[in-house]
Amino acid sequence: MNYKFIILSRQIEPFYEKAIEEYFKRLKRFCSVSLSVYKTHKKVPSKELEKFLKVVISNDGKTISSEEFALKIKEFEMKSMTNIAFLIGKEFEAGDEKLVISRMKLSEGLTATLLAEQLYRAYKILRNEPYHK
Amino acid sequence: MNYKFIILSRQIEPFYEKAIEEYFKRLKRFCSVSLSVYKTHKKVPSKELEKFLKVVISNDGKTISSEEFALKIKEFEMKSMTNIAFLIGKEFEAGDEKLVISRMKLSEGLTATLLAEQLYRAYKILRNEPYHK
Repeated sequence: MNYKFIILSRQIEPFYEKAIEEYFKRLKRFCSVSLSVYKTHKKVPSKELEKFLKVVISNDGKTISSEEFALKIKEFEMKSMTNIAFLIGKEFEAGDEKLVISRMKLSEGLTATLLAEQLYRAYKILRNEPYHK
Repeated sequence: MNYKFIILSRQIEPFYEKAIEEYFKRLKRFCSVSLSVYKTHKKVPSKELEKFLKVVISNDGKTISSEEFALKIKEFEMKSMTNIAFLIGKEFEAGDEKLVISRMKLSEGLTATLLAEQLYRAYKILRNEPYHK
């Protein structure tokens, strides 16, 4: 699996950068994952994202649990949807899918941190491994 | 208002410590807020918490939005409930109130970070100030 975190944000706080970096490091043995931050919508390389399934992270709708998110990841795998782009930032409206990880408004850095933590947790759940760190 | 974050955890990751510290610094002009981490339930100073309204952070139930959380804070203020303890950690079951900030299982450090960010956001909402950082 190949995940891209596409973030529209003026700035990601350094502590969130560190957090995301740590989860990406832990995720390495499960999948490939990268992050790109853009200041404006226009800068997002839509051409490059064409072959990606676009999942908009929203706070409007029914929230998902960790187990449901793990099943979603499994579903992607089963359907051979190997290129997944998570779109983070309130300017993103349309995507192929919508994912509500919290009803609360979170900063983009916190959203990406939460998503990275949950992606790691999803793989631990799917592999029946304990989540001890 | 006087808030205590009471956390049961083996370890809070350093990047979450930094994040919480930053939000606590920003919160200073609105309220008093502190954090204590305990390794076991037995170490939690229940005597000291007697005069606090205990709010258990859970991931089981109906999730709250940022605006609803802000109204909750306003309600505490209106009812002169000035001492609020947020209990974070899966061993905490009973409290005076329950608050569901996410249906996802989050590490204690991430839960505290999210809560600190939302507490700051709540004060910005209640004071009609823009949330620009």
